[in-house]
Order: sequence, then C-alpha cells, then structure tokens
Amino acid sequence: MAVGDGELGTIYPVKGFRLGVASAGIKKPGRKDLVVMALAEGSHIAAVFTRNAFCAAPVQLAKTYLASAQAEGLAIRYLVTNTGNANAGTGAVGLADATAVCQRVAEITGVKACQVLPFSTGVIGEALPTQKIAEALPAAVSALSEQAWLDAALGIMTTDTRPKAASRQIIVAGTTVTISGITKGAGMIKPNMATMLAYLATDACVEPAQLQTILADAVNASFNRITIDGDTSTNDSAVLVATGASGVVLQSADDVAQFRLALESLCVELAQAIVKDGEGATRFVTVMVSGGATDDECLDVAYTVAESPLVKTALFASDPNWGRILAAIGRARVPELNVDGVTLWLDDVLIAEQGGRAASYREEDGQRVMAQPEFAIKIDLGRGSCAETVWTTDLSHDYIRINAEYRS
Amino acid sequence: MAVGDGELGTIYPVKGFRLGVASAGIKKPGRKDLVVMALAEGSHIAAVFTRNAFCAAPVQLAKTYLASAQAEGLAIRYLVTNTGNANAGTGAVGLADATAVCQRVAEITGVKACQVLPFSTGVIGEALPTQKIAEALPAAVSALSEQAWLDAALGIMTTDTRPKAASRQIIVAGTTVTISGITKGAGMIKPNMATMLAYLATDACVEPAQLQTILADAVNASFNRITIDGDTSTNDSAVLVATGASGVVLQSADDVAQFRLALESLCVELAQAIVKDGEGATRFVTVMVSGGATDDECLDVAYTVAESPLVKTALFASDPNWGRILAAIGRARVPELNVDGVTLWLDDVLIAEQGGRAASYREEDGQRVMAQPEFAIKIDLGRGSCAETVWTTDLSHDYIRINAEYRS
Repeated sequence: MAVGDGELGTIYPVKGFRLGVASAGIKKPGRKDLVVMALAEGSHIAAVFTRNAFCAAPVQLAKTYLASAQAEGLAIRYLVTNTGNANAGTGAVGLADATAVCQRVAEITGVKACQVLPFSTGVIGEALPTQKIAEALPAAVSALSEQAWLDAALGIMTTDTRPKAASRQIIVAGTTVTISGITKGAGMIKPNMATMLAYLATDACVEPAQLQTILADAVNASFNRITIDGDTSTNDSAVLVATGASGVVLQSADDVAQFRLALESLCVELAQAIVKDGEGATRFVTVMVSGGATDDECLDVAYTVAESPLVKTALFASDPNWGRILAAIGRARVPELNVDGVTLWLDDVLIAEQGGRAASYREEDGQRVMAQPEFAIKIDLGRGSCAETVWTTDLSHDYIRINAEYRS
Repeated sequence: MAVGDGELGTIYPVKGFRLGVASAGIKKPGRKDLVVMALAEGSHIAAVFTRNAFCAAPVQLAKTYLASAQAEGLAIRYLVTNTGNANAGTGAVGLADATAVCQRVAEITGVKACQVLPFSTGVIGEALPTQKIAEALPAAVSALSEQAWLDAALGIMTTDTRPKAASRQIIVAGTTVTISGITKGAGMIKPNMATMLAYLATDACVEPAQLQTILADAVNASFNRITIDGDTSTNDSAVLVATGASGVVLQSADDVAQFRLALESLCVELAQAIVKDGEGATRFVTVMVSGGATDDECLDVAYTVAESPLVKTALFASDPNWGRILAAIGRARVPELNVDGVTLWLDDVLIAEQGGRAASYREEDGQRVMAQPEFAIKIDLGRGSCAETVWTTDLSHDYIRINAEYRS
C-alpha cells in the first residue's frame, strides 16, 4: 500500500554529480542493489547520521573518513551504497567489510579509500557479501552518468514500493542553480538527524561549514519530522553535495535564504514521500500542534499522537475516535497540562474543546475528514505560542504482514 | 488470542468485602456490565490513579470524594464500576453523570455520595447512560456477596477474553490473613500509577497511610511494569481495601514485610494476566535489563524494546531478528552508551556481544526460544548494577483487527 500516486516530477541533473547503478545480487539475483555516485573535483559535501548508539559499520566508517579526508586535505569523491544488507550489528568484521568495499572503489577510480563514503541498508546482523559487491563495482562505475537519478532512486529501495526523488531550480544572479535529491525508507522510520538514506546534490558553490549548517537545518525541518513506526534506524544518513559546477557562489543573505528555502522544500517533499510509502500505509496524516509553551512539548505531543498504536489503528479504520487522540495528548510529557485549554480539530472540523466533545461536532463531519487519504490532526494546547508539525501514517494489517515476513 | 490457559486458582473471599453484579445493558443487552463492591464498616482504602492529564470524570470524582470523605471523617463504603463506557473526554457533563451514579448508590444504601467511589471503562467520549445504570443498581446491590469475586472479575471485562483474579493467604500471629484481587485490561495498556482497573482487598487491619504506601509500592512493581501498546489509559485506577475483619493488625516489621511480599506477588500475577490477555497477544515476553547505571535507563531500554513495533512484529513471527532489538536499545535515551559493552540473550541463548553477533550463536537456537509462547529477552548494558523488568506481548494481526473494529 502507499498513499497518493507517487508520480515524480522532472528530476534535473546536477552538473558535476554522476550516478551509476549495477546488480550485485545481494538479496535477489538481478536486482539493481548497488549504487555509486561520483563528485566532480572541487565539490564539497555535508553529512548527518543516525543518533542510534548501535550505528552501523558504514556510518562509523563514513564519519572516520570524513574526518581523515579533511585532515589530509582530500575531498570526498565517491559514495557507494548497497541495499539488501545493513552491515549493522556486525562488530569488527562489519567495519573491515565496509573498508574493503571503499578500498575496491578507490582502486577502480584511482582515489584514496578515505575519499569514498560507504552506505548500507537492509537486514541487520548479517555479514556483508563483499565479494559480490566487489565484482559488481566496475559495472556501477562504468554506468556513471549525470542523467541516472531515477535509476539510483530505484537502486536504493528496500521495502519501498516506489522511488522517491525531487528537484528544485532557483535563479541566483541570473544563473540557474539546481538542487536534486533522492531518498529511500518505508519502515524503521523515525529519523533522528537524518532518514534512512538521502542523497542531495546542487551545482551551487557552497563552503563546507555553511553547507553543513544548511543541511542540518533542512533535515531538521523535514526528515527529522516524520515517523512511521517510531523505530530509529541504525543506518540513517543524509548527504548534501555542492559541486559548484554552475559557477554560482551563494553570496548575499538573500541568495542563501533562497537556497535554504528551496532545499528545505525539497527535503520536505522527499520526507513526505517516505511517509506516503510507509509500510502498509493507507493514510498520510499531518499532526500539527500549536499553542505550546515550548517547541519540545509541541513535538512530544505530536509524536505521542503520531506513534500511538490506538490512534494509528483508528486512522486505518477511518474511525474519528477522537478519545484516543485525547488520551495520547494526555499521556505526553507536558508538565501541568490544563486539559480545559486543549482544542482538537480534524482538518477544519472542531472536535473537542474544554476537556470534551465540542457542542457543534457531528460524527459524520469527522468521518468525512477521515475518509480522505490525506488530512490533518490539529491540536492547540492553549498555553503558549510555540508550534511543531510531524507527518505520519496509519497502522494497518500490511505493516504487520511486511514486518512479520521481512527481515529488516 | 491470549497466551497460556488463563486458568484461575482458588479465589478466597475476604471477610467484610462483598461484590455484586448486574446488567445495565450499556453496550450489549443482557451483558453483566455493572459491579458494586461494599466495604464493611471500619475498612480502610488506598487508591492510585492514572497520570494521564485527560483523566476521566470518575477518576476526577473519586479523587475529590476521597479527599472530602477524609475531611468529613467518613469512610468509603461502596465502589461502583460500569464497563462499556469510560465517561472520559466528556467534560462537565461527564462529571455530573458520575456524580449522579454515586448519589444513586448512596440513596439505595443509605450513605453519603462522597462515600461512593466511581469507576468506568470502555469507549471514550460518549455520554454515560446514567438512566440505565440507575435502573440496574438495585439488582447489583441486592446481589452483594463475599463469594462473588469471579462474577465481578467477569463483570469488569471489556476486550478481555478471560477474567483475571488471584488470591494469597499468609499467617500472621497464628491467624490467616487473605488478600484477593481482580483486574481487567487488554488494550490501551501502559499503566502509569495503576492499570485499567484493579480491585484488591484484604481482611488485615492496616492504617490508611501505611495502606497507601504498600499499595503504591506493589503497583509500581507490577502494574507499572507492563506494556501492551504503550498507550496509557484515561481511566487507570487501582484500589486496595483493608477490612480488618480478620482482627489481625500488622504490627512487627516482619508482618508488614510478609504482607507486602504477598501483595506484590498477587499484583504481579494480575499484571501478567493482563499482558497474557493483551489484544491479539500470541506471546508473553519478559524484558529484563541489567547492568544499567540507573534504574531509569534500565526502564527506558526495557520499554523501548517492549514497545518497538519492529521488535513486536518479529515476536509475532517467531523470528529471532535480534538486529531489531539492538536497534531499539540503540535509540533508547541512554547517555553515552558504549555498544561494545552490551550483551543480549534470548532466555539463556547468548545472541550478541561486543556490538555484534556472538560467535557461538546459531540461528536455530534463537528460533527454538522464540517458538515458545513465553520467553525472556535479557539485556545487560555493562555499565552499572541497576536492573529492571517489564512484561509485554507481540503485535499481531488481531491487535489491528480489534482496534480498527472496536471503539475504545
């Protein structure tokens, strides 16, 4: 299942950024499961990774290589991604395997191993089939092309039912600047710093420190605001590459603001695409919490509602069972919450106020809202001016089926 | 579904504590859905209630009555419980309805309204049918008997598939002291202070202040250590009545310790019965976390594992997918967790250590453990001497079916 048609708009190539896909047969013979990306000389990269303490070997190695490349004055030149195996929970062997993959890419392309960042996604706790990957790498490198965004979006999928890609173009000082990105993920989704995997590239020229800040802010407003099952992955990674190939340098505050806005909007589109393709998803629900005393309490209420199994099963049933929403709000960690100040809407239908059902509310109005594939749960806490939004899905039979059958 | 046969042992009557059941036809005609309990003169009562900010009208009123009865020097003499309607999220009307029910009990029995504590469980957000309840109350009062524990255990059920009752007897100063209890609950189960509903009674004589401490400690070690779906109810309430009818006063520290131990063991049995009858449950799983620096971090890890949808679907599938357990441990809020120090067992099978799969682990050993209806996930954090245990279930198709069909 998935919500909406998932149709992709035009994905504009990014000058200086090439993608190549091949099949290593990691989980299924013939499946495109290996993706290499190449950054032109002079590119900068920013990255954010999962905060899960059990972070996977490729995440650990990517962090190490980013630091050592910087120390040696070298640029990151390649990204290598496999699906079908997360190389997580694999201890010292996993780290050696990730290193071997990067070394192989380095040999083929003539760079140093620390100029190659590894990414993996798939089942946790099984050894990475490095031999299969090594054999398929030359084909992926040969296939490198600025046109292959869609192939790469398909190549990084696991339980995803469709590829996720988006693109933006802005005009800076009369020149077109492109930002394109792809992402994957459908389960174990509550990113904390980043989502399962997201690759973003622009041909603007942005200095590393600024690039990192811009990426962290955009991720925080997008990938870090979605939840499917509340489970943070061991492999979450997001990177933003700036090739500079457009020749455009972001100089004025206006240029930077325009770029930030475009990147954030692109990341929100990709993050929402993940939720819409959530495992077993039949609903795409925006949970908006306003009137909070702090941003944190707004987020806590939003996530408590978005992750409540009882709310999620009611969403699946199209049942405007608002009592479950109130119960979830009530168990969130909001100190001294006065429930009489809480107001609840489904889209624009007022459901509850002053601790109970609104006098104007009619069940059929709630049902009409919840029959839609996409709608909003709006909550005002009535105690401040902070607000936060998260996006989520329902909990359906298919979620159980997928996760009782699939080893992730 | 439910785990185990749920067979009940002997439930010993408690002198001075009577129970009576009737049918008010709140949700289904003819269903026994109204329970009255009567406390003999001289009884003391202790109570704990949900910490959900949206606590139901009966919870609010029970707290008020406990305070006002104490202020007026009056004893609580009756407890009245209905199922099929939680009287929660009902605002001022709900409070008036709960008051009307208590007043009706008071009229019939000749006590003051504040000597009657109300309890409700069922759908949230619908008006309590006070007329139906008022009409059935005389029958429930007429039925009052010290022998009716099982009737009452059946009468407080909602989505429960079977009654939950337990009993203990201890000898104090040569005299037998009895403690018996019943409870209900199968969904919206992550008690915080108490479970959905639990009624405990003893014929020992225990002073109110001591009774409250003893109850709070027992609840904390039992009902507050279970989770089915992580959703804390609006109506959780647990009471402990001491009728004193045995003539036995708990005097020595040994007597008190013996009583505490018996009560805690009874509460653990009842709390585990709730989990075994959890909505859709096919597994009963003990999550034991040791080696923590604090109790709180042990609990946080235990609940994160116990509530992870991915762990729970793996439990349903009997799939020893330990990577999902590591991922859940890794996203718990343990500051500076060194994953190399974490050790994981399924029952006594060593699964993972030093950040990855144990060399000795064979998949068939993990499968053998998980094929059982009951087993333990044991986690050692390797950073201290604190330990905590929680009990939970799997997440199955039936949980979805029950909660997409049932309005709770």
